[in-house]
Parts: sequence; C-alpha cells; structure tokens
Amino acid sequence: MKAVILMSGGMDSAVCAAVARSEGFNLYVLHADYNQRTSKKEKECARNLASFYKAKDFKVLTLSFLKEIGGSGLVDERIELPTEETEGIPPSYVPFRNSILLSLATAWAEVITASAIFYGANSIDFSGYPDCRPEYFKAFQQLIDVGTKDETRITLRTPLATMSKAEIVRKGLELKTPFELTWSCYTENEKACGVCDSCRLRLKGFRENGVKDPITYAE
Amino acid sequence: MKAVILMSGGMDSAVCAAVARSEGFNLYVLHADYNQRTSKKEKECARNLASFYKAKDFKVLTLSFLKEIGGSGLVDERIELPTEETEGIPPSYVPFRNSILLSLATAWAEVITASAIFYGANSIDFSGYPDCRPEYFKAFQQLIDVGTKDETRITLRTPLATMSKAEIVRKGLELKTPFELTWSCYTENEKACGVCDSCRLRLKGFRENGVKDPITYAE
Repeated sequence: MKAVILMSGGMDSAVCAAVARSEGFNLYVLHADYNQRTSKKEKECARNLASFYKAKDFKVLTLSFLKEIGGSGLVDERIELPTEETEGIPPSYVPFRNSILLSLATAWAEVITASAIFYGANSIDFSGYPDCRPEYFKAFQQLIDVGTKDETRITLRTPLATMSKAEIVRKGLELKTPFELTWSCYTENEKACGVCDSCRLRLKGFRENGVKDPITYAE
Repeated sequence: MKAVILMSGGMDSAVCAAVARSEGFNLYVLHADYNQRTSKKEKECARNLASFYKAKDFKVLTLSFLKEIGGSGLVDERIELPTEETEGIPPSYVPFRNSILLSLATAWAEVITASAIFYGANSIDFSGYPDCRPEYFKAFQQLIDVGTKDETRITLRTPLATMSKAEIVRKGLELKTPFELTWSCYTENEKACGVCDSCRLRLKGFRENGVKDPITYAE
C-alpha cells in the first residue's frame, strides 16, 4: 500500500508518519519549502524522518510563490509573530496553504496510484486556521473525488485532526516516534525559541505527558 | 473590483479576460509555467495579453514539480499526444492541475482581497478531463468557502464552462479579443501544428464562425 505524506519536519508530521507506517503503508514523502524562516532546518528534519521511516521517495517542493504573495508572518519577517496566546486567526496563517499542499500531494498520489494521503494537521490547538477545520478536510475529500479520474481512489487521512498536542505526544511515544529528529519552532534554526505559538504548544504537550522534549531550547 | 485571472496565454484565457474586463474587474494575472513543451511561447502570450488588458500585476508561477512527477504528455515528451480524436481522458491530462492552479490563485486572491477568480476552463470540448466538470468547480467553490477566513468572499467564475469552442470564438469576436496574441498548440512554439487536440478544436471554432484564425500554422 502506497501513501503520500506531507512532511513538514514538525512533531505532528512525524507522529502522522508513525501512524501510517503502523498501518503498513509505504511512504512517499512530500516536503514543502516555501522560504519560511526555518526552511533549512525543517528540510533537514523532514529528510531524516523520511529516512527513519524508510520512505520510498522524498520530494522537496519549492513554493517561492507563497513568499512572493506574502500575507503571513511565517514567510514575511516584517509581520511579527506572537509570543503569547492571541485571539482569532494568528499571523502565522498562510492563506490557503493546505489546499496548495494537498493539491500537489493529490497530483502525485494519482500518478503513483497511492491509495491515501496522510496529513498531520490538527484543529484543536489551531482552531484559528480556517483550513484546518474538519469541514475543510471533508470539502477537500470531495474535491479529490470529483477532480481525479473515475478509477482513482484516494482517501485523505488526518489521524491527528481531533487530538490535542498532549494526545499527539502520547500517540507518538506509543509508536516510538523519534521526536529528537523533529522541529517545531517558527523562528529559530539552532535552538528552538520556546516562546512562539508552535514552541509553546509543543512544550505544553510534552509537559502534560510528564516527559522531557528531547530537542534543545534557548535558555 | 479586483479579480485574479489564470492566464495560460491560450484563446480561452484571453476571452475570459475580455469577459472579466467587460464587467469592470481590474486583473491580477497568474501564469503557470510547468515546463510544458510550449512554455516559452505561452508565457510570452500571457504577458502580452496581460499588458493588452492593463493588468495591475502579472505573476509567473514555476511549477517544475508537475514535470518531476510526470504523468502527462504536456510535460513528458515520451508520452505521445494524439493528432486525431480519441476516447476517454486524453494523455494531455495533467493530474489535479486545476486544483493546484486554483489553490494558488485563491491564496493570492485572499491576500489582495480580490472578490473573484476568473478561469477560462470549459468542459464541452474536453469532457474527458475530470477537473473541468461543473461539479468539480462547484466542489472548489465549497473549498474556498470553508478554507479561507470568514470575512473572505471569493467567487470562482468560469464564464466559458459550458460554451463550445465556436461559442468561445464568437464571444471573443464580440468583445474584440486580440486572438493574434494567443497560443493554443500543445507541441510547437513557432508555427502551430494544426493537428494536436488543442489546434484542431481551435481551428474548428474559427471555421464554424466563418472567420480566419489570425495565428500562423505549419503548412
């Protein structure tokens, strides 16, 4: 069984890969580089995770267009990223990014006749992102069904969709996910900052499991 | 009023631009270069059309990923393209291409707060492409609605969706579309071949209007 998996190099994509492998899928890994602040580090992590999970193929997509159109603090350094909890859609939101990634994943899945796409998105902690909601993924499945050949059958799998970060860490520990190979920080490439939205959620997830996060944080 | 328009440089995208302009939209032109056989020629046409229609912005997207994953005669020269009518999905089909293009267009539209995306796709002559069907565009509109911010309102417009090539030519003539700036041939860059699917449909469309196509064809 073949599956295309979107692998950012973050903790969630690693746990998602662990789930897919535990179900017996062979992985075709797609990593998107959209010139975000931490792209070099994330690519390295994605590559190491692909190798850990014995991926059959590893492709890097360069989406410089996202930087060109701007609109997100992840790619535009003039937009400040929050270091504490905020309301509404966070400035890290990249417009319609999931549709771009999932469309590219679907194209690849159709060419290699994969039966599934795995995506480690989750809506619990990032309820602010419109394209992480369950109804969004339902709409995307519908798009796959009508937009591919009649004989193509691709199921969009988002096994972490309704898990909290703590549940994701627990699932990852259970499946022996190599958390030391992952990166979540939005801003730093050497030592994780510990204060951006992504670091804070990750740390909280480990803390709630009473486990130490194996990556290095700035003091 | 702002609209993002997908501009391949072909006849349909030119007529689609004419429709959008006739409704008063200012155009933000998105041209995709996926290293297809005729990409240089198409880019030149798209640029000239953007300039003709006084576009506010013109962006070229390089989607080399599509060539990398393969699967279409448009990007893979080892796949032969037919020179006469065939049944089923033609080998020019690029898997899930429309979703990739429309996702990128939607991202840009959300950033610049455009109220519409214009796409000159049509399903009459290419009923074989799954991602040109009316139900496909309906599913994509649904995806836009659930996958963008609540305050974002973007309407996907496909004004040529149910027109035949002859009707598209007629509409284009009515709106004084500069057909001499367009390119439709799948394989040639200097003189259109006249025999690929795209050339044959185009020529038929002009013939049915009793009008000569202004571009040059190989003898």
